[in-house]
Amino acid sequence: MVNKVKGTYDVLNDEIKIWHYLEDKIKKITKKYNYTEIRTPIMEYSNVYHRESEQSDMVLKETYNFKDKGNRDLTLRPEGTAGVIRSYIENKTYATTDLYKVYYHGPMFRYERPQKGRYRQFSQFGCEAIGYKNPLVDAEVIKLASDFIKEIGLKNVVVEINTLGDDKSRENYLNALVEYLTPYKDELSNDSKERLTRNPLRILDSKDKNDQKIIENAPKPIDYLSEESKKYFNDTINYLKIFNVSYKINNKLVRGLDYYSEVVFEILADLKNFGSQNALGGGGRYESLVDELGGPKTSAIGFSFGLDRLILAIKEEEIEINDNNYLDAFVIMFSDNELNYGLNIINELRDKNFIVDFDFKTRAFRNQLRRALNNNSKYLIIIGENEVNNKQVTLKNTKTEEEKIISKDELINILEKEIR
Amino acid sequence: MVNKVKGTYDVLNDEIKIWHYLEDKIKKITKKYNYTEIRTPIMEYSNVYHRESEQSDMVLKETYNFKDKGNRDLTLRPEGTAGVIRSYIENKTYATTDLYKVYYHGPMFRYERPQKGRYRQFSQFGCEAIGYKNPLVDAEVIKLASDFIKEIGLKNVVVEINTLGDDKSRENYLNALVEYLTPYKDELSNDSKERLTRNPLRILDSKDKNDQKIIENAPKPIDYLSEESKKYFNDTINYLKIFNVSYKINNKLVRGLDYYSEVVFEILADLKNFGSQNALGGGGRYESLVDELGGPKTSAIGFSFGLDRLILAIKEEEIEINDNNYLDAFVIMFSDNELNYGLNIINELRDKNFIVDFDFKTRAFRNQLRRALNNNSKYLIIIGENEVNNKQVTLKNTKTEEEKIISKDELINILEKEIR
Repeated sequence: MVNKVKGTYDVLNDEIKIWHYLEDKIKKITKKYNYTEIRTPIMEYSNVYHRESEQSDMVLKETYNFKDKGNRDLTLRPEGTAGVIRSYIENKTYATTDLYKVYYHGPMFRYERPQKGRYRQFSQFGCEAIGYKNPLVDAEVIKLASDFIKEIGLKNVVVEINTLGDDKSRENYLNALVEYLTPYKDELSNDSKERLTRNPLRILDSKDKNDQKIIENAPKPIDYLSEESKKYFNDTINYLKIFNVSYKINNKLVRGLDYYSEVVFEILADLKNFGSQNALGGGGRYESLVDELGGPKTSAIGFSFGLDRLILAIKEEEIEINDNNYLDAFVIMFSDNELNYGLNIINELRDKNFIVDFDFKTRAFRNQLRRALNNNSKYLIIIGENEVNNKQVTLKNTKTEEEKIISKDELINILEKEIR
Repeated sequence: MVNKVKGTYDVLNDEIKIWHYLEDKIKKITKKYNYTEIRTPIMEYSNVYHRESEQSDMVLKETYNFKDKGNRDLTLRPEGTAGVIRSYIENKTYATTDLYKVYYHGPMFRYERPQKGRYRQFSQFGCEAIGYKNPLVDAEVIKLASDFIKEIGLKNVVVEINTLGDDKSRENYLNALVEYLTPYKDELSNDSKERLTRNPLRILDSKDKNDQKIIENAPKPIDYLSEESKKYFNDTINYLKIFNVSYKINNKLVRGLDYYSEVVFEILADLKNFGSQNALGGGGRYESLVDELGGPKTSAIGFSFGLDRLILAIKEEEIEINDNNYLDAFVIMFSDNELNYGLNIINELRDKNFIVDFDFKTRAFRNQLRRALNNNSKYLIIIGENEVNNKQVTLKNTKTEEEKIISKDELINILEKEIR
């Protein structure tokens, strides 16, 4: 037997309803805030992701890289932002709008150790607002992200927010951080030791207990901010207040990618089986990616959510999905003698856009009935010899169990009235 | 500057509306016929596609194959059916239903020469009905495919249909075909010469002029059918008549994949710039794929459409897309003095699920107005010093140009009444 690739999954039957629910919420929220959808390819030239400035494990160790038959280096996208920026530059979008508000969702690929809610092919939803730097844009993006999680139905949604400051502030802070950490070098975990030269910021969110103790008294980005960055952060916070966003300042918050500056944030909610206050997604402002990929110097902000984790959360929180995936009618024919008569009715109902199914084999009544009930059909349309002879059908409401023998015209009238 | 990968494309702004239109039609049609969505991974182990019996160019020459970091052989899916069947077997779906009706849509990958409407990453929509062999199932699948193209708005939709017969019929026919073609071997095109031993059936749809002349008098599958296959084909045709499907029998029709037997079909429509009666998609019955991939012997039928081609067709036929991608209101604030008052109104309207945007920079009135008009906003909400002082707004209907000064409560009442 052939299996699915390790770390991938199939979405079947009941599960697809949750995906549709989530995707409807994405459509609704992004529309409300006037973000339009963008779709970029799943494969990009490797240098879209493998950039000198990007030294995260994710890009260095976890990307799927391969050569195509023309010997080009390709990478399956591990995240959505770089592709959107590549498109922004290549399509010269900056020439047509000074603030480009877009969202994307779809499959991403990372070669990680598979675990609960974490896959090698996974799904993300993200937004980007590309064009200029304005704390009001930051606040809107954060509000949108927070609204999305609330709209899904998750409880105690809160935003954690921090600032890394502008380039100058960030550089000053990094120097202070490395100076503080260097004396502890031998005590740090192996991962953190390596990060001390490569990207010391990431040491701040080390999961290692001893690292965490060392970090406790480390300098904080907020103490190294330029006046401009301080004002930018305060303005953002003020706009969040106007937008009624619950937020908490978290001085240790950094994000997994290296390109962030100024505002970074995560969205948290209470989830039973994940522990409380779990981060479901996040993002931040980035100011060098557009010109690094060959475009004009442009400031942008974005976020992303892992949808697989949200699917799991919806299941475990037992959030009710409004499921309208039922049949309007299931047609039961007693034997092949009624088949042509029944098919004509089925065809006419479908032409009128009713959702109708039947058992192709016209088997025993109870087998057909089981299939009807498995499909949650609102009505049964039963056709036997008498019905054919009198040009009628028996219509049964599966909820009220009411049953009546009626003509085909009456059938259509009743369905129009009861279902539309 | 970094470019997109050759043969791939970005979907932006106006184009995304056509994709949403197409995807809404897919949802509507599949629901009506009680097909549920399935999502299988984009990467599969290579042996899902590279099977001994599958000798098509598509699989042999055009797939993206690579090794993952664990040295596994992976392939980016070149089509949707094999993954669905892999899932059907692995999830033992056959144990829970005797007829599994599913649809899929999403990106597929083939290393082909890019041309108009043909890409290396492209999109397909397809259906599969897996479980048992019954001409009524074939007729329903064909009807669904034909309805889909009609529903999109394309003209003169017709189904071309043929039968290759069951295994025995097919073997008899292949022998006769090879016997007929062998004397012409030296005259055949190079491609067809190669196919004569590998898969002679494909010679029937050769695009080479001289091949076509040779084929003209070749034996036809229909003359080599077993009694059962003849009856199966006639029954299918009869059900198509009951379902009001326009069809034409085309004795030369074979499909690009090697696994088909019995009924094969294509859906055609008139398209201005493609020439008349162009094939937009098709499919057929297949009976060996499930057991080849390690499942129980199971008969199935399916079809697929290339969505990129349909997008092109929708554009070229100038089919009207019902575009409701406009704003309910765009808020214009005269200066930063009105910002907080304006943001409160924006926030309240969005909380009530109105689609609202504004210019973050509160620039000159005409700049803000331009952004509003670019977004096709139904209303302008204009806020200056007077409006703030009197706790009012100026509301302007962009269509009627009617303008009035009203309170915030009145604003919400009017929008509720006019937009909902």
